[in-house]
Amino acid sequence: MSPQRRREHLIEATLELFATVGPEQVGVREITRAADVSRALFYRYFSGIEELRVAALSAIVRELGASIADPVGATPLDQLRSAVNAFLDVAEKHAKAYVALLRSGSVVASGDTAALVDGVREQIVRLVVERSGVPAPSPLFLMTVRGWVALAESATVSWQQDRSVPRDQLVEWLVGQLRAMLAENARHEQVPAVSF
Amino acid sequence: MSPQRRREHLIEATLELFATVGPEQVGVREITRAADVSRALFYRYFSGIEELRVAALSAIVRELGASIADPVGATPLDQLRSAVNAFLDVAEKHAKAYVALLRSGSVVASGDTAALVDGVREQIVRLVVERSGVPAPSPLFLMTVRGWVALAESATVSWQQDRSVPRDQLVEWLVGQLRAMLAENARHEQVPAVSF
Repeated sequence: MSPQRRREHLIEATLELFATVGPEQVGVREITRAADVSRALFYRYFSGIEELRVAALSAIVRELGASIADPVGATPLDQLRSAVNAFLDVAEKHAKAYVALLRSGSVVASGDTAALVDGVREQIVRLVVERSGVPAPSPLFLMTVRGWVALAESATVSWQQDRSVPRDQLVEWLVGQLRAMLAENARHEQVPAVSF
Repeated sequence: MSPQRRREHLIEATLELFATVGPEQVGVREITRAADVSRALFYRYFSGIEELRVAALSAIVRELGASIADPVGATPLDQLRSAVNAFLDVAEKHAKAYVALLRSGSVVASGDTAALVDGVREQIVRLVVERSGVPAPSPLFLMTVRGWVALAESATVSWQQDRSVPRDQLVEWLVGQLRAMLAENARHEQVPAVSF
């Protein structure tokens, strides 16, 4: 393997472990065992578990960003559904690592990953604003969309824990909540409602 | 001063500094200067800056919890408004410390404070559920209220940064969003709407 490929291989093995075991429980020993490499080799690529954690969590954040970048669908509403589905795909794939990434004060969330997570949040906000067709979004409109992103994160984490509704219903519920929140905001601001 | 009072005095001085300067920028030197005590005295009460940070942030969380515990008002809607106002009072008083407390991956948010923050969130959820009069809240109902708490936190942080609307309007907007989200959830679950 090339050094670049070896590094990716270590990150992939880490992400697989993180998805099921939870990043807090994973150390260098678990990773070298899962990737079938020696400790010496590990330390040629990463200074320690912290650096690998940040690299692995950054990979998830980039995947989240890429997954929602170009939603498919004929109408803005279809595109919103497609983006929500793509987001849930990535959250599902990484399961426990996704939860750890968002948990405030989690041992694995660092200043580095927090900035990346904020980047994805702003990307989602831009996507919704763009698709909504509102040319100059008001501060309250932006607050509404940011609040919906916070709702979507909180709902995804709850849902991953209790699976209380089928996934399709979760998607429709999230889409419905955004529409209701935007309608309420339009009512509050006394402007025409945005139709998604 | 008694040891108990001296400890409280150090925590109060820290909270005052945190509110304006931001907890990341505050070290033992700034605190001993603000509280007008020696380094030696500081280390008699706290093992270091970390322990004092946790004590100070815990004090804010307890204040948040106490402030919303017994909202005044004749109707559930008035009580909700009163609780939102009490929450904003505490967030305003502690300003930068409040933001730091919620920021994921912030250097000052630790596992200890994250658990306390989660406790206040659940307390708000219980309060809303209780006042809503719903005897057996469904998982989606709880998700809606938790999502609103996430929206309220995110909106408060945004608002503290840009002050884009008068505070009264923010309160009405937050109350309106909860009502809209609960109505949307009732529509989705095909159950009668909760009237706040």
